[in-house]
This record gives sequence, C-alpha cells and structure tokens, in this order.
Amino acid sequence: MEKVILSEKFRKITEHWSPVIVGELNGQMVKIAKFKGEFPMHHHENEDELFMVIEGQCFIELDNRTIELNKNELFIVPKGTKHRPFAPEEAQVLMFEPASTLNTGNEVNEFTKRDLERI
Amino acid sequence: MEKVILSEKFRKITEHWSPVIVGELNGQMVKIAKFKGEFPMHHHENEDELFMVIEGQCFIELDNRTIELNKNELFIVPKGTKHRPFAPEEAQVLMFEPASTLNTGNEVNEFTKRDLERI
Repeated sequence: MEKVILSEKFRKITEHWSPVIVGELNGQMVKIAKFKGEFPMHHHENEDELFMVIEGQCFIELDNRTIELNKNELFIVPKGTKHRPFAPEEAQVLMFEPASTLNTGNEVNEFTKRDLERI
Repeated sequence: MEKVILSEKFRKITEHWSPVIVGELNGQMVKIAKFKGEFPMHHHENEDELFMVIEGQCFIELDNRTIELNKNELFIVPKGTKHRPFAPEEAQVLMFEPASTLNTGNEVNEFTKRDLERI
C-alpha cells in the first residue's frame, strides 16, 4: 500500500512495448509501457482498454481513423475494436485493463508478453 | 468513442469535491474532480479506489499515516480502508472506481454526490 511515482517506474523500463504492472484494483490492472515504433493491429474480444499518455505522444489507429493522444489525454478502445498503437518518438503510456488482457489481444506474435512483471 | 482531453474537462469543473464521469470501461468509471480543502473521513466497503494527481498536490490521510500525492503520482486505497483526502491548494485529480462507488463511501453528508454528470 505505497504510492506509485510514475516517473520512477518509467525510469526502470528499458524495453519498448513491454507493459509492467504498477497497481491493481477491483480486478483491473494499472499497467505502464514505453511505446516507440509500431505495434501490430489487434483487438481484445472481451475487454475495453484505456490508454493515457503521461509523456510524449502516441497514436491509436482504428479501422477508419487515427486518434492522436498527447500528454494528459486518454482514449478508451471498446472491446472488439481493432486498434494499432504507434509512436514516432518514445511515449510513456498508462493503461487500465483487466488482469486477463493480453497485450496483443487476439494475436500471438513477437510482441506478445505474458506474466507481466510488477515493478 | 472520442479521446478525452483532461485539461478541457477540468476547465468545465467549477465546484470542489464534485466528481464527474469522463469515461467508462469494464464496469469501472474514470472520474475527475477538483479537490480543495478537506473531505470527510470515509471508507468504501466493497471497492478499491485509485487517486492520481494530474495537477497540483493532494493528501490522503489514512488511520496511521498520510500519503502525499504530487503530479503523476497515484495511490490505490484498498476497500474497507478509512481515508480522508485533503488539498491545501486546488488539485486536479483523476479517480478509477466502480460505477457503484459513492464519493463519501459509508457516510452520507453534505459532500455526498449522486447521479454524477458525464462531461
């Protein structure tokens, strides 16, 4: 039961697209990741997913448009919605989603991360 | 399905301690509020509650210690834990909690807000 200083947690992250868990509440996980470059298009069958930019800028490409997310902006991707995050420069991103959510959703590929570390 | 620009949402809030809903996912609500002054001690019987400071500084007094939260710091109050938020100066705070969570928890008093507005 300690506070989470996001800047300290982000400093520990060295790999892009590799979420870590920084908190848990009501069966939902608070995860953070550094984004840089392009992530594969995917969807989550049963889970909504929240992205919030803490530092930098990222984009969420959807089927018919692309959401630009700057610092202190958030976007909720409804379950079943295909999305592809990308970030031209490194971005620090907070995510909120159920413990069960796999980062690559319906796809399993070289980006897939299981058994996320808690930092 | 639009992005949420937190600064724009906070600009619309004129009353302290009056949370509004800015998003919903997986049965959880994303709420924001401006804190200033002292809120009554309370607890939530069945819900964990996350506080994250977006601008400013707030404090969460617990039974035996007080958590200081600055910008981009978050704290999860476990269900059943008595807590009293306070903020000497105005703070902008984001909260994650179930739709069912009443802001004053087990207490009903002049701070109690029901039927929160979505902005």
